[in-house]
Amino acid sequence: MNLLALDTSSEGCSAALLLDDQLTDRFSIAPRGHTRLLMPMIRELLAEQNLTASALDAVAFACGPGSFTGLRIATGVVQGLAFGLDIPVIPVSSLATVAAQVMAEPGLVDPGAGVAIAFDARMGEVYWGCFRSRQGFPELVAPERVCAPGDLVLPDSPARWVGAGSGWLLQERMPEELAVRIQRADPGRVPRAREVALLAREAWNRGETVSAEKAMPIYLRDEVTWKKLPGR
Amino acid sequence: MNLLALDTSSEGCSAALLLDDQLTDRFSIAPRGHTRLLMPMIRELLAEQNLTASALDAVAFACGPGSFTGLRIATGVVQGLAFGLDIPVIPVSSLATVAAQVMAEPGLVDPGAGVAIAFDARMGEVYWGCFRSRQGFPELVAPERVCAPGDLVLPDSPARWVGAGSGWLLQERMPEELAVRIQRADPGRVPRAREVALLAREAWNRGETVSAEKAMPIYLRDEVTWKKLPGR
Repeated sequence: MNLLALDTSSEGCSAALLLDDQLTDRFSIAPRGHTRLLMPMIRELLAEQNLTASALDAVAFACGPGSFTGLRIATGVVQGLAFGLDIPVIPVSSLATVAAQVMAEPGLVDPGAGVAIAFDARMGEVYWGCFRSRQGFPELVAPERVCAPGDLVLPDSPARWVGAGSGWLLQERMPEELAVRIQRADPGRVPRAREVALLAREAWNRGETVSAEKAMPIYLRDEVTWKKLPGR
Repeated sequence: MNLLALDTSSEGCSAALLLDDQLTDRFSIAPRGHTRLLMPMIRELLAEQNLTASALDAVAFACGPGSFTGLRIATGVVQGLAFGLDIPVIPVSSLATVAAQVMAEPGLVDPGAGVAIAFDARMGEVYWGCFRSRQGFPELVAPERVCAPGDLVLPDSPARWVGAGSGWLLQERMPEELAVRIQRADPGRVPRAREVALLAREAWNRGETVSAEKAMPIYLRDEVTWKKLPGR
């Protein structure tokens, strides 16, 4: 299959092209340049392989959580591409893409340890996703959510965790209990289209696609957050 | 020619389909619903004519000035559609679309009068465009700009003007000189895709198209504004 993957969910802007097992990509840190950079990246990736957009079987994107403005850019491009080409869309969690990035790093995550991804969500909150590795791919241990750093909770199992994402810059505000179970944290990691592509291929194999019209950003904030649930 | 036109530059969300002289459209006021509403509108318009996206010759959009977030949504969809379908893009000024709307209203604008469009740009400023009618289409009398309502200036000619757009809610803050030359002002008008389509057809006939990659929002704010020019 020929899969195009996009990410504009953070200050990074990236595109990746997955042709069967061949992955090529473009990545740039460009907080305000997504609208300008994304299309040339797509054009270059296709041109390198002597392909036109009509060769694509599906288009994937990091659907959030992340920057409201950034998510709308990728969503728009994906909606337009998928509708124009009459191909399906594969939305991928931005948090899961960073978990996949960390899990793929040799020696970074001890066998059995979990990966806790936190993005700075501004307004004194973080987006939060706790994953474990399942056959090398991130699997959610608890639902993704948004909350204040002081309200973060790690799942009981596994015991040890590795952290990644900009939310870990707020580690001082996180509960003490978290700190003792985190082996290390890398706040510098941002989502990349290459992991969007790799996770999207798995979703494709499971038949998890949506139509262009159903390609929507996931903000988390518009939804009920964990800390607001009854009983907490 | 078959032309699709989109507008998400304000709280309005709309799409229009122009097939030779036949114009159909969808319009909705939906401040936070653009990402959800736009694609179904496009699908419906095409389905009504038994067309698929591949029948389109060009795609047009209101490129600004307007809501930063809104502009990025239409820009994304237009970039994706145009790239996927390998068709050109026609950017149209949001201010000009409202001028066209006003000019097309029977008896609203006296012959020879100008049309002054103002959008609330927040941050105590307005987007501003002054047009006169040229064969029924709006033609800029002075460059579009963003400035405080108190700094607005009407061109010397024509003498009389009709105002439209949300910026006219700030009329109390506009200079006295403006008030005496404005015959009436309608703050309730917002851009619509149907005028995007009509103006885009004129641009198409003049050969004024750009590639998907060059489809960019015009924010005005990122550029030199009139009041900042030397000598003022």
